[in-house]
Amino acid sequence: MTSAKSPVSRRGLLTGGALAAGGTLVGAVAVAAGRSEDTAATPAQVPVATVGEAIEPFHGVRQSGVATEPQAHAAFVAFTLRPGTDRAALGRMMRLLSDDAARLTQGRPALADTEPELGLLPARLTVTFGFGPGLFAAAGLDERRPPSVVDLPSFSIDRLQPRWSGGDLLVQICADDPITVAHAQRVLVKDSRPFATVRWVQQGFRRAAGAEPGRTQRNLFGQLDGTANPKPGGPLETAVWIPDGPDWLRDGTTLVLRRISMNLETWDLLGRTDREFSVGRRLDTGAPLTGAAEHDEPDFAAVGPDGLTVIPDFSHLTRAHVSDDRFRILRRPYNYDGVPAADGTADSGLIFASYQADITRQFLPIQQRLAERDLLNEWTTPIGSAVFAIPPGCPEGGWVGQQLLG
Amino acid sequence: MTSAKSPVSRRGLLTGGALAAGGTLVGAVAVAAGRSEDTAATPAQVPVATVGEAIEPFHGVRQSGVATEPQAHAAFVAFTLRPGTDRAALGRMMRLLSDDAARLTQGRPALADTEPELGLLPARLTVTFGFGPGLFAAAGLDERRPPSVVDLPSFSIDRLQPRWSGGDLLVQICADDPITVAHAQRVLVKDSRPFATVRWVQQGFRRAAGAEPGRTQRNLFGQLDGTANPKPGGPLETAVWIPDGPDWLRDGTTLVLRRISMNLETWDLLGRTDREFSVGRRLDTGAPLTGAAEHDEPDFAAVGPDGLTVIPDFSHLTRAHVSDDRFRILRRPYNYDGVPAADGTADSGLIFASYQADITRQFLPIQQRLAERDLLNEWTTPIGSAVFAIPPGCPEGGWVGQQLLG
Repeated sequence: MTSAKSPVSRRGLLTGGALAAGGTLVGAVAVAAGRSEDTAATPAQVPVATVGEAIEPFHGVRQSGVATEPQAHAAFVAFTLRPGTDRAALGRMMRLLSDDAARLTQGRPALADTEPELGLLPARLTVTFGFGPGLFAAAGLDERRPPSVVDLPSFSIDRLQPRWSGGDLLVQICADDPITVAHAQRVLVKDSRPFATVRWVQQGFRRAAGAEPGRTQRNLFGQLDGTANPKPGGPLETAVWIPDGPDWLRDGTTLVLRRISMNLETWDLLGRTDREFSVGRRLDTGAPLTGAAEHDEPDFAAVGPDGLTVIPDFSHLTRAHVSDDRFRILRRPYNYDGVPAADGTADSGLIFASYQADITRQFLPIQQRLAERDLLNEWTTPIGSAVFAIPPGCPEGGWVGQQLLG
Repeated sequence: MTSAKSPVSRRGLLTGGALAAGGTLVGAVAVAAGRSEDTAATPAQVPVATVGEAIEPFHGVRQSGVATEPQAHAAFVAFTLRPGTDRAALGRMMRLLSDDAARLTQGRPALADTEPELGLLPARLTVTFGFGPGLFAAAGLDERRPPSVVDLPSFSIDRLQPRWSGGDLLVQICADDPITVAHAQRVLVKDSRPFATVRWVQQGFRRAAGAEPGRTQRNLFGQLDGTANPKPGGPLETAVWIPDGPDWLRDGTTLVLRRISMNLETWDLLGRTDREFSVGRRLDTGAPLTGAAEHDEPDFAAVGPDGLTVIPDFSHLTRAHVSDDRFRILRRPYNYDGVPAADGTADSGLIFASYQADITRQFLPIQQRLAERDLLNEWTTPIGSAVFAIPPGCPEGGWVGQQLLG
């Protein structure tokens, strides 16, 4: 699924092959490679024996971590640039970050790694960089900022907290191993110190690698989450990746990151039928209320014996539905689960990550429909919001953002 | 490694076997079973195709989660009993908790599960209960509390915070999948509400299942952690499990849970040689400084050309070393990694869990030696401490703590 040519050497393939006795553990898209630094061009999918050794490419036309099959763990780290971090400094920062990300994702320690042994297990590590509105301003490049890369308009349902919102630079770190994520976060935060301070960190999780291969994940409400995601191929190309425009943005995308608190206390008081009405899908199979299987097309016109539509007009499915592939969004959410209060009230929810070529054209209309009337709003509250341009990838020897900042 | 007879049915075994094409993903001790509720007694080790389906027993002579090969994720949940939670109420609470733990660990939803779909993937879930000093007092059973189940004496190195210390009841939840842990935590916290409030929750992680099969894990300092753990067999039996005494404690153990902050900022300033001196082992292989491989016996008498011992007298290895098997402790630590401060200062460390038959005889002497002089103290600080009796397991139809509280 990763679009870049994977730098897999023949030697790497042989090594990977020798390890492949146990079958593929990390889903159909895992790309295996040895630790070779060769760059022969043999893209391939090789099963690996361990979750730890699997590698995703760093260099390529597009950044990894977007169309990449979601890894089990993520840390979204947002930075505020220090005063004086100008275009030249940003270039130095991105060169440093790109170089260490390239090493760590390929199972090699960072350049000045103080815990090099923690850098040897990539576990499909990806590091994805995003540029917030403040970065363009700091670089003196406000006129090159895509118009939709700006704080979202406020919605009536929002209860945004500054501690989960905004950010000049985003470093999205994903891997199937939580120690790998922790180490990469540590390295990249240290790299950033001369240039930026940590604004917020959001740590999230999905099912473990190998726990439920090929299945849509469930969120902490128990819902299947991500059923309607565009599949690799046509729609993904045009809806997610920016097909034209300036060099520095073509083959990039944009990210809307929302922190959505899920009120498990009131949700748990709700009966199963009411839940299914509010979602528009069955909770067990994820099938639309008019269908039998998860991926059945919903029939919004179907009417029940009571004369009402089978899928309620106010259901999440109805309000979020997009029929035109060009307007779809790629959701790649992670769950969060903080420490409950003394009385047991959960601090749970979703780190909702949506990637699309154009926020204004794709994300905002959906969000507007959901904010107006979506039954799920009764049990969910957006408490954080941030928007980033995700620049294209970089070739070996280059760095992410070079066409903009170089 | 789990001592209980595993309730694996023949039908379950067939199901498990049918899934076993991909090899064992979860180490040598995983016990596989179908979701059958039969209780035929065919203990066996069956490889499973997915991390999610692997099952650890709940019922048995000893509780799971101690000698169980450590799972990737843990939540340690400590409760404070509500006023009025007496012996009878504690019995009702433990009956409820044991029943739901038995279901969830075997891949079945809890009795009143509001998200039953989240209860279907056990991923080697274990739920282990521990009784703190306050529970004995609340039950009017102070005279039956083991004398060493009491707040540890204070050590000069301690900087204990109430928010990470103490607790009347501990629920230790471990699984290879983070969603499974979150769901079990939610269910068990809800069960506890009439009886107790949440005092603290400590969430931790180790390497993902399948990431590094058979390897000693590393902590966030990059050290191999757990090399000298007693292996299953003789020493484990006598050092970890209480061999005699009252029914309610025999085949139980005791747990010391310490939250140890690790100062990555100053550690990262230290050269590699100095690190290895302070640990007493090589960082890459984990071998003692007098050896070549991780499990080589350290030679504390060996003297270098400078006339000093090769392994410094103040090294962690020297101070923590126990030569008599009967006095060893079983460490089962998890890493934690909180959100760094704005300047990047890490909030990282270890949830240090030590199991032993007798805290006074086994844990305290080691801790005393470490507190007196252990070079690692320069970079580590205990910030939380709690002590629990871990009662024996229970048979099907019984509940944990029944011999004490029933």
